[in-house]
Amino acid sequence: MTDRVVLAYSGGLDTSVAIGWIAERTGAEVVAVAVDVGQGGEDLQTIRERALACGAVEAEVADARDEFADEYCLPALQAGALYMDRYPLVSAISRPVIVKHLVAAAQQHGASVVAHGCTGKGNDQVRFEVGIQSLAPELSCIAPVRDLALTRDKAIEFAQAHELPIETTKSNPFSIDQNVWGRAVETGFLEDIWNAPTKDVYSYTQEPGQSPGPDEVVVAFERGVPVALDGRPVTVLQAIEELNRRAGEQGVGRIDMVEDRLVGIKSREVYEAPGAIALLTAHEELENVTLERDLARFKRGVSQRWSELVYDGLWFSPLKRALDVFVAESQEHVTGEVRMVLHAGRAVVTGRRSETSLYDFSLATYDSGDSFDQSLAKGFVDIWGLPSKIASGRDQRTRG
Amino acid sequence: MTDRVVLAYSGGLDTSVAIGWIAERTGAEVVAVAVDVGQGGEDLQTIRERALACGAVEAEVADARDEFADEYCLPALQAGALYMDRYPLVSAISRPVIVKHLVAAAQQHGASVVAHGCTGKGNDQVRFEVGIQSLAPELSCIAPVRDLALTRDKAIEFAQAHELPIETTKSNPFSIDQNVWGRAVETGFLEDIWNAPTKDVYSYTQEPGQSPGPDEVVVAFERGVPVALDGRPVTVLQAIEELNRRAGEQGVGRIDMVEDRLVGIKSREVYEAPGAIALLTAHEELENVTLERDLARFKRGVSQRWSELVYDGLWFSPLKRALDVFVAESQEHVTGEVRMVLHAGRAVVTGRRSETSLYDFSLATYDSGDSFDQSLAKGFVDIWGLPSKIASGRDQRTRG
Amino acid sequence: MTDRVVLAYSGGLDTSVAIGWIAERTGAEVVAVAVDVGQGGEDLQTIRERALACGAVEAEVADARDEFADEYCLPALQAGALYMDRYPLVSAISRPVIVKHLVAAAQQHGASVVAHGCTGKGNDQVRFEVGIQSLAPELSCIAPVRDLALTRDKAIEFAQAHELPIETTKSNPFSIDQNVWGRAVETGFLEDIWNAPTKDVYSYTQEPGQSPGPDEVVVAFERGVPVALDGRPVTVLQAIEELNRRAGEQGVGRIDMVEDRLVGIKSREVYEAPGAIALLTAHEELENVTLERDLARFKRGVSQRWSELVYDGLWFSPLKRALDVFVAESQEHVTGEVRMVLHAGRAVVTGRRSETSLYDFSLATYDSGDSFDQSLAKGFVDIWGLPSKIASGRDQRTRG
Amino acid sequence: MTDRVVLAYSGGLDTSVAIGWIAERTGAEVVAVAVDVGQGGEDLQTIRERALACGAVEAEVADARDEFADEYCLPALQAGALYMDRYPLVSAISRPVIVKHLVAAAQQHGASVVAHGCTGKGNDQVRFEVGIQSLAPELSCIAPVRDLALTRDKAIEFAQAHELPIETTKSNPFSIDQNVWGRAVETGFLEDIWNAPTKDVYSYTQEPGQSPGPDEVVVAFERGVPVALDGRPVTVLQAIEELNRRAGEQGVGRIDMVEDRLVGIKSREVYEAPGAIALLTAHEELENVTLERDLARFKRGVSQRWSELVYDGLWFSPLKRALDVFVAESQEHVTGEVRMVLHAGRAVVTGRRSETSLYDFSLATYDSGDSFDQSLAKGFVDIWGLPSKIASGRDQRTRG
Repeated sequence: MTDRVVLAYSGGLDTSVAIGWIAERTGAEVVAVAVDVGQGGEDLQTIRERALACGAVEAEVADARDEFADEYCLPALQAGALYMDRYPLVSAISRPVIVKHLVAAAQQHGASVVAHGCTGKGNDQVRFEVGIQSLAPELSCIAPVRDLALTRDKAIEFAQAHELPIETTKSNPFSIDQNVWGRAVETGFLEDIWNAPTKDVYSYTQEPGQSPGPDEVVVAFERGVPVALDGRPVTVLQAIEELNRRAGEQGVGRIDMVEDRLVGIKSREVYEAPGAIALLTAHEELENVTLERDLARFKRGVSQRWSELVYDGLWFSPLKRALDVFVAESQEHVTGEVRMVLHAGRAVVTGRRSETSLYDFSLATYDSGDSFDQSLAKGFVDIWGLPSKIASGRDQRTRG
Repeated sequence: MTDRVVLAYSGGLDTSVAIGWIAERTGAEVVAVAVDVGQGGEDLQTIRERALACGAVEAEVADARDEFADEYCLPALQAGALYMDRYPLVSAISRPVIVKHLVAAAQQHGASVVAHGCTGKGNDQVRFEVGIQSLAPELSCIAPVRDLALTRDKAIEFAQAHELPIETTKSNPFSIDQNVWGRAVETGFLEDIWNAPTKDVYSYTQEPGQSPGPDEVVVAFERGVPVALDGRPVTVLQAIEELNRRAGEQGVGRIDMVEDRLVGIKSREVYEAPGAIALLTAHEELENVTLERDLARFKRGVSQRWSELVYDGLWFSPLKRALDVFVAESQEHVTGEVRMVLHAGRAVVTGRRSETSLYDFSLATYDSGDSFDQSLAKGFVDIWGLPSKIASGRDQRTRG
Repeated sequence: MTDRVVLAYSGGLDTSVAIGWIAERTGAEVVAVAVDVGQGGEDLQTIRERALACGAVEAEVADARDEFADEYCLPALQAGALYMDRYPLVSAISRPVIVKHLVAAAQQHGASVVAHGCTGKGNDQVRFEVGIQSLAPELSCIAPVRDLALTRDKAIEFAQAHELPIETTKSNPFSIDQNVWGRAVETGFLEDIWNAPTKDVYSYTQEPGQSPGPDEVVVAFERGVPVALDGRPVTVLQAIEELNRRAGEQGVGRIDMVEDRLVGIKSREVYEAPGAIALLTAHEELENVTLERDLARFKRGVSQRWSELVYDGLWFSPLKRALDVFVAESQEHVTGEVRMVLHAGRAVVTGRRSETSLYDFSLATYDSGDSFDQSLAKGFVDIWGLPSKIASGRDQRTRG
Repeated sequence: MTDRVVLAYSGGLDTSVAIGWIAERTGAEVVAVAVDVGQGGEDLQTIRERALACGAVEAEVADARDEFADEYCLPALQAGALYMDRYPLVSAISRPVIVKHLVAAAQQHGASVVAHGCTGKGNDQVRFEVGIQSLAPELSCIAPVRDLALTRDKAIEFAQAHELPIETTKSNPFSIDQNVWGRAVETGFLEDIWNAPTKDVYSYTQEPGQSPGPDEVVVAFERGVPVALDGRPVTVLQAIEELNRRAGEQGVGRIDMVEDRLVGIKSREVYEAPGAIALLTAHEELENVTLERDLARFKRGVSQRWSELVYDGLWFSPLKRALDVFVAESQEHVTGEVRMVLHAGRAVVTGRRSETSLYDFSLATYDSGDSFDQSLAKGFVDIWGLPSKIASGRDQRTRG
């Protein structure tokens, strides 16, 4: 029986050519798998037919949008995940859900190898391969671009020679990856880090300077899950989609940064994540109201580590799972509403209310109704400062 | 000889009354000390004369603006200090510099007590008293509002009865603290956390929606110190002041948040810090370009702990000093220029260049000139993922 | 109706006197509550009768030994909790279980106040009072020694004057607290930190230099719970008790240290915890075998924070709960056996085996059977070191 | 001109053969470099002559014992470095000093390649190669065992065929690495992790059960540097050597553990580090007396990260340097004496005294002379517990 390779298929030039390229170089049959994580573009059936037309023996397509929102975007939201305090892990969280579908297809179709379209210098090869090996240690991985010398020029040549039903002329100046959680743009003139992004870099967001009037939105959360916008119940996917539209119109969520890749180099990345940034902003402020101080302080470290792990391709690792239960526990009381104004590139919280708030007006107020016993303060201050005081006394004594 | 009390004097109603109030209740002579940390308002001589007119036996005034910028704002900038990831520690870093001047005055004038105008439920009492005890363990502290029952009503009554040269009619709806690093506003209707701030809350910043055209600025750093704006050399103080003006005009640096006070309660705070936020934004991106990954990752934790310590009144603590040397060491290569557009409430980096950059075009590019050896990747990926793979294998084996 | 105070009652002089002392000074009725956490000494009925004889209107006694072992010692074991890397939190974990019984008694007997025998300079007052306020914010706390001037001399005088059935002559040179997890000794000549402990300090352990021949024990764990000793099934309590005896006989678990109290001072403490140290040693090594590296590394930080929180009286805090779920998740595969030799003051692991081990002989061995693909190493090493290499190149370039 | 390769030369079979093996396979001339880090065994001249006899064109030997003690062991001591809380980084800290000498020799002899004797599955290849690339990015690395198929059998065959002056018959059952900071043993029957070590595994330490009478030693530190033993001034090297002898005689410093290698696998390691463990024990307790609490708590995290970095081969990384300055700052007051009893496998601190102590008898004592103001405690306790109390109130309110 012929060996089978499951290929992560996007419908674009590189992976369309990869079907035949892999078949030629390895002798295996190729099963194409395309996963919809909200990247837009062509419909899944069109993609499926192209895969078959390009030589795939089987082609699977999956609408994983709700799965992606519920099981990947939501944990990232609850973790407050921003790699290097800025990047909401757009591509990083989409790889594991694609991996799940690839592995399922490999098991279903009896494939022993999984192929993906990544190069050898990015993070995504790691996310794919470590994910696959974690879910199915018996599978091996292959990357035609990295391992089978499939360059862009050879891909165009191959497509033309084999008359593949895929456009080879349109050359995008950028390398792009997108899904419902956001959009990542790199390469091209952005590789000169002194260059500013031009308008054509963006697609999910309008120019902040040309946005319409302010758009006020009330986001309701229950235990850390966004459940309503302006009082209308939503699924997580709907919340992201609606805020992608509304915050995107206002130019919210553009990010331009130099970032540390796992493979040891720095790269320049431009992201758009209007819905993600709007939700993260609202969620963070609701946590400010509902999380106890020590928990909130420690959670910042958890958030950073979670982000690094997921960025670094370790979604399916034991530590990631243990951090997930920590985060889940922290969300128990993150219930309430946040009012936010979206405008001209900014998502600004203007109000918050919660039945589970730890903000206590009677303790906080300086007006009548103040219930804070200020006579306790002196004792607190003196004992709080005692270690510093003793150390300073020591320093002065031993210096003199 | 009569006991002396050094009083942190602002020139306002509360501390003007406190001069006589302390004298009456303790029998001590009061020495007033006013420190200019860029809070604006009346000039120091006017303040000095009022203190004497209100009964101070001595009145010291100090222009500490450069000292504050160089020794307090700059370390905060280099530490990337944002309490709860948002608040640039406006009041928190001004207390220690004031404390230094209070302690010096106490030693000069033979005072055994230092007095300040804080209440018993805020952070500033801790910052004053722990600071004072750390610098001079032999001094004791007193807070007339907290310890001598000096309420607002009694202050007005006292001022009128003693005909003090201070206005008693103007009542500010907010409690305000400001300096060159920013401005803090609290109390009043902001204590209802569902209320949005109104325009009169703000003073350092214009409405973002009504800002003039974009303002592009190039900030140059040398070893983490801002040294030039648009090519013109500046001191740290000048950098902050100019960016306060330019970023303030663009509505940059408004912050509205619920925050965790050291004394165990949550409070609602509104801040404006246009210069601070602009500088922090530029500095962070220059670090993205010049800091090695592991150093950058660990520095995030240092930054958080530094911010908590300073927020919590422990500026003069041994741990703060040890974190300072870590931060200083990290700045060795933070040299270069960042181009930033200030507009409509946002400070957006659009370019960065540095002789000490770790961004390596030839490693990062996907164009010709690529020097990254992709053949190394497979080995890296497989070993990087090995612990996860082994753990997953174990999980599957022991589950079955 | 007369107010009622629930008193944490030990049966000793101080709390026996406190019954009448509180009654006299506050006019309240006192309900005595004694909790057996394995401290040994008199039986609960004797203690109960003495409380009534000393004037308590009610006296409750509870055998909480299994509850203490299962819900307090076990989480500490699984967390690997050692404050300052040395102290297994002997007293710190006993306070919360006592607090639970005090609060239950207060609710049952309609008391509005809880009293305890702590001084005002130790950690235990914090653990009692923060615990009580967390479980029952409506209760208030009182400490006769700290708040009602009940000194040792006055206690002896009171006991003699009222002919209380409690010995007043025997004076212990030390202050001692003990339970099944260990024993804490302080004060007396130990307050001179240059003095070595004398033999009479110890009670749970024999002199290590005079121990009998080595005692080999095999401890079996299931998901982080000790379930068998030498093949015999045990409860957690039994495991601790048997190892207290066996490891105690070998002088294992003596600790002598200067430690940082929450109230800002350093104190000198001597502990004995033979069972705890033996179990912690075995458990740690089983984790070395069964925990994935990143999880193990992060867990060290969790362990430290857990220990600090519990030491600092925050057992019932939200962060403690969130750390608990992290720890619980980490224990999923901590199953297996550890062989340990107890001898002459040391508990030394000599073997470990586990069905859920991550130690893979075929990957680790240098003999035939080696399945580790060494050809992957070069790629890993080069990419692993790339950030350091780039940074060093930068350093050399910019130095020259 | 012929290429030159600098080889890390030990004098043993593998690297003796490597001289000719590298020359044959690469055509390069081999320069042998041997570094004395206190490993004992043959003298440097004997080793030097053997290298030349085996075909090296040049042979350099260096006595780096003091350099190793002062610049590598001392930072590890001050950092409190114990990987996985147990392993004092014996081999890990010796690699960087050897790397320095290799790089210096490469530059002196015009070599473009450095060779070492490590396999492809251990940590040491990483430490050598990342170190070399960091110090001299222009050098490349080669490992004959990993890259040139130099197996043990081939080495014996080659040595016999070429009549090299090196014994080929004696086969050690273990793989051993040793220096003045300790000794590491692995492989052989230890690879079965249920097997206990046998007596022949050990060399630096005597059987604890057969140790002579207790040996009391007073270690004096100045700013974290051991400067005297029992009052006699010592260099760092002398301190380690004397304590290796005295603590080794008492069986102190044996470690048997399963450890996480950087390359993703777990391995079983046995270590002996009598001097290191004795010094670490004394130093830690002196820190307990002289370090302020917050500094001490944060330093534990620094210590862990420092240990991981050094274990993972990143000695010359920017983060390591920044942690070093943190540690150095922390040592400012670590001055004083620690009395320790070495006996039967244990190093037990029995006394400590320091002019820079933060232990304050008058604050700590419960006897007369107590200067701690217990009236401050109530205020401290109530405010300390306030966040937990508010959170518990919320939990109860929202549950009901």
